[in-house]
Amino acid sequence: MSLNASQINAIKKAPTVEGVLPVFHERWSARSFADREVAPETLKKVFEAARWAASAYNEQPWCFLVGRRGSSAYQKIFASLIEFNQSWARTAPVLILGAAKTSFTHNGTENGYAIYDLGAASSYLTLEAAALGLTTHQMAGYDQAKARQAFDIPAEYALGAVIALGYQGEPAALGNEQLIAREIEPRDRKPLSEIALSAWDEPAKL
Amino acid sequence: MSLNASQINAIKKAPTVEGVLPVFHERWSARSFADREVAPETLKKVFEAARWAASAYNEQPWCFLVGRRGSSAYQKIFASLIEFNQSWARTAPVLILGAAKTSFTHNGTENGYAIYDLGAASSYLTLEAAALGLTTHQMAGYDQAKARQAFDIPAEYALGAVIALGYQGEPAALGNEQLIAREIEPRDRKPLSEIALSAWDEPAKL
Repeated sequence: MSLNASQINAIKKAPTVEGVLPVFHERWSARSFADREVAPETLKKVFEAARWAASAYNEQPWCFLVGRRGSSAYQKIFASLIEFNQSWARTAPVLILGAAKTSFTHNGTENGYAIYDLGAASSYLTLEAAALGLTTHQMAGYDQAKARQAFDIPAEYALGAVIALGYQGEPAALGNEQLIAREIEPRDRKPLSEIALSAWDEPAKL
Repeated sequence: MSLNASQINAIKKAPTVEGVLPVFHERWSARSFADREVAPETLKKVFEAARWAASAYNEQPWCFLVGRRGSSAYQKIFASLIEFNQSWARTAPVLILGAAKTSFTHNGTENGYAIYDLGAASSYLTLEAAALGLTTHQMAGYDQAKARQAFDIPAEYALGAVIALGYQGEPAALGNEQLIAREIEPRDRKPLSEIALSAWDEPAKL
């Protein structure tokens, strides 16, 4: 089966709900990237979006190591990925590693929301990427110790996901039947009744 | 100084950047809520947005306890807030408590991204709320043990933030000079050079 990017996006798009921003339904995590660079001024916008996430005490604990293909940062992030992720992420023109400071700057105490806030900023980044016609894929599958060592990241920073970013490619370019099958299957989420509750194990009346 | 909601929103809005979705620049965390209920079908849309966040292995570890004013869930969440947050959050018509399952359902192993993914889903929720003309305010300031006990939340779930949600009110209604001053001060974020890096302590060239 040979589907192009726009056919896939139609499959991946969540059912429209009136009043819900289209970007939430349109964003999905592709693995096939086109052989096309991302202009610095375009990349800048995804971090501009990330800046404005909310955070505990407005600490903004997040930072992002950004590797463009051919750079030392890219090599370091790529080398930390597990083999499966390397097999497809090698076509991504940009790799990003998120980190979050786990103490508050204003008083030095522990920030228990550092990773929560990094998750928020990263989602702003990926939503803005989708709005710009880019695709992103966040990965938990990488060696955190290896990445930390390669960048000499201080112990007080916790690591988030690695984010592959670029323009969407054709599924066929993945060259692997299993990956192609995942690239074209519809997205799936739990029903609202499992995530909005009025008591533990009791769906909220919405 | 007596400013109305639309004057405040003009102050709070981040500088427009062409190509960046307006919702990132427009969302901010108000403390003054109007005396106006949120219709269930409106509330439903913010959770619909949250459903579609990305998560490690598509675990979707998040769930949200939703309290509408007058309900038992609302009382439980409100009672867990620290006094300062109670002082203003009592006017919010909806209080939400986020939780995340810290083990993977498919194999029972630890999910190190549960809180990261909850942070993402919560940010979808707050962005969609902003798109619907609602305001939200996330709070780290509450007693997690008290909330956990009140809802009998299993130990394998980690807790996120409490989110106050409603329509924006007039700052003057806060009735406290310090809160009013915070309600009308511009939002502030680190520059891009501090959050997008090509090496540790080296800004990325964007």
